[in-house]
Amino acid sequence: MLNKQRLLTPGPTELAPQVKAALGRDMIHHRKQPFQEIMHRVQQELGLLFCTEQPVMPLACSGTGAMQAAVSNLFRHGDKVLVAKAGKFGQRWEDIARTQGLEVETLAYPWGEAIPPEDIGDRLREKPDIAGVLIQASETSTGVLHPVEEISRITRESHALLVVDGISAVGISPCPMDRWGLDCLITGSQKGLMLPPGLALISLSERAWDRAEGVDTDCFYFDLTKERDKVREGQTRFTTPVNLIYGLEAALELFKEAGLERIHRKQWALTQMTRSGVRAMGLKPFVPEHYTWGLTSLLLPDGVDGKALLDRIATEYGVYMAGGQEHLKGHLVRIGHMGYVDWSDLLAGLFALREVLSREVGLSAEPDFLEQAMEAYNRAWHAPLPHL
Amino acid sequence: MLNKQRLLTPGPTELAPQVKAALGRDMIHHRKQPFQEIMHRVQQELGLLFCTEQPVMPLACSGTGAMQAAVSNLFRHGDKVLVAKAGKFGQRWEDIARTQGLEVETLAYPWGEAIPPEDIGDRLREKPDIAGVLIQASETSTGVLHPVEEISRITRESHALLVVDGISAVGISPCPMDRWGLDCLITGSQKGLMLPPGLALISLSERAWDRAEGVDTDCFYFDLTKERDKVREGQTRFTTPVNLIYGLEAALELFKEAGLERIHRKQWALTQMTRSGVRAMGLKPFVPEHYTWGLTSLLLPDGVDGKALLDRIATEYGVYMAGGQEHLKGHLVRIGHMGYVDWSDLLAGLFALREVLSREVGLSAEPDFLEQAMEAYNRAWHAPLPHL
Repeated sequence: MLNKQRLLTPGPTELAPQVKAALGRDMIHHRKQPFQEIMHRVQQELGLLFCTEQPVMPLACSGTGAMQAAVSNLFRHGDKVLVAKAGKFGQRWEDIARTQGLEVETLAYPWGEAIPPEDIGDRLREKPDIAGVLIQASETSTGVLHPVEEISRITRESHALLVVDGISAVGISPCPMDRWGLDCLITGSQKGLMLPPGLALISLSERAWDRAEGVDTDCFYFDLTKERDKVREGQTRFTTPVNLIYGLEAALELFKEAGLERIHRKQWALTQMTRSGVRAMGLKPFVPEHYTWGLTSLLLPDGVDGKALLDRIATEYGVYMAGGQEHLKGHLVRIGHMGYVDWSDLLAGLFALREVLSREVGLSAEPDFLEQAMEAYNRAWHAPLPHL
Repeated sequence: MLNKQRLLTPGPTELAPQVKAALGRDMIHHRKQPFQEIMHRVQQELGLLFCTEQPVMPLACSGTGAMQAAVSNLFRHGDKVLVAKAGKFGQRWEDIARTQGLEVETLAYPWGEAIPPEDIGDRLREKPDIAGVLIQASETSTGVLHPVEEISRITRESHALLVVDGISAVGISPCPMDRWGLDCLITGSQKGLMLPPGLALISLSERAWDRAEGVDTDCFYFDLTKERDKVREGQTRFTTPVNLIYGLEAALELFKEAGLERIHRKQWALTQMTRSGVRAMGLKPFVPEHYTWGLTSLLLPDGVDGKALLDRIATEYGVYMAGGQEHLKGHLVRIGHMGYVDWSDLLAGLFALREVLSREVGLSAEPDFLEQAMEAYNRAWHAPLPHL
């Protein structure tokens, strides 16, 4: 109790009190009327969150499970897909697709870069038999925001479906499924939705449904066509994580109260705050532009042991941040600022990071670095949001 | 508040207060030390629950997801498996296996019957290339307990793996994985473990691990060999439903306090109580012998609309029971008595059932039917448990 815990990880995030209260509610049966009523309400709000007229299906799995479901339902063994990757989760698309027996074309970029949309256009013209393009909206391993809308403009001219992992984008930065013409949009519960992990959400465009209806998936557990039929009845095909659906209802109520546009604005302001604070500390954000709105990654000075640093921040200040992944392990700090988090959490986080870094490597931050961070936050609240 | 809700469904079950409190705890990050400590403790207790030396892997999915994982990891496309089925969940094994491209042999029995072990022996001798036998320990759609130990004695003489869906058996009636020689045992969170749905547990025998290591699953999300490596580090491969793991820890603490043997005894006593009460009401348990210990199914008198009956019991008395499935829809009542449930819940449930039935169809129960039920309960607590 001397330090409050602060989860500044890019998922799971802290839980709102309303969500916590919902999680511990009495169990009800998932095939009875009271549950169906909740599902119908949740379905309406999910449509607003995904900005789609299509059903948004809850699946009992992690976000990776929903990625699996997308690949299993939209493509046949042997189909050719294009994976554009610039991080760990781009790699995951490739792994899922290869494991599923698809022929995988790749466009690989250094971690930290955004996908150039024109490369996708070139590859689609070169190989017109590509049946789908698999990308992240936000690459959580680096903190990059890919240009989804522009990519979609290109894929819509081909017959390739655009499948978007929006796990750290939905509810964080704009990703309007129907307006942008995305064919599949996925998210997980433990990011923008500020729920515990264990639930994924997925929605398909009309074009994607047409495709799915012609694919016989060999994974019985993930059959989206059958799932859609159940969702229309206010149910799920298999037993659903009832208490996460309670939590989802509570979280969507918070979204409704705040308004999606203002949540995006908060996310943008927190991003500016973090970037400004990090710079005023004398550190460099890892992603110069095209950065995501739910986490800020920064490169540690040479010689700093990232893992030890994060352990110390957690032990001494109660603040949990994430490190780098794969080849960036130990070199990167990823400060999560998505879900149930506000400026006061980041003030504490930035302070703890500076304290430990100045002690460990003599980092000398500008004395008003927190003030600078707050100024950036306030400015961002009142400036127009950038066009994505 | 005029009627307390009582969930007498065969999963999800009511939640213990300790579990509810755990579910609403602050989120922690699944890759950090505090989570790993919980996972190591949970792993130890799961070994006692499954009665195995092997790791017990938590998967973010429903019980069906774990069935999918078993089929995906133990068999190759084209492998021949034997499904012995006598209900909806037996059928599910067949559906998963066929969808996965396996060659499926079946032994089909009427709903309500138990699998005769000798039939499995005969089929294995006839078709020695059968690579696995897929069964339920307890068939939740009918309330039958299959003779798993005897079947295992037979499969162990062949090279076929015995894969057991223990979803409504583990934590309810004895199903000791290592002693009985089961090759794969599965359960779900929302049955004997009295948790919300959303988590499945699966464990493999050494023989099954040898097989799994030679199988390249094409379902990236369910890769048990990789999952095992992570479980040894106190983690899971993908983001795990952290708050269900909290709940699992709390539930396993309750198991430890009561002792597994006494929980089995309670389940046996509740089963005797329900059967006796149902008989004294003038109704017939659907399964004459070989009945499971976590639910009691009964045939409704001709002409009774099962759905309307269950709706009335729910609306008027707050008691939720389940109906029949597939061709038994409308004809069967399934009274769940697993997980966080005791004699007092069943007293209420039996009373509510009798009230509505006597009003609707003039059913005349013996006036002391509740007394008879309680006598059966008390007798069963003190008699030796039947050999399974």
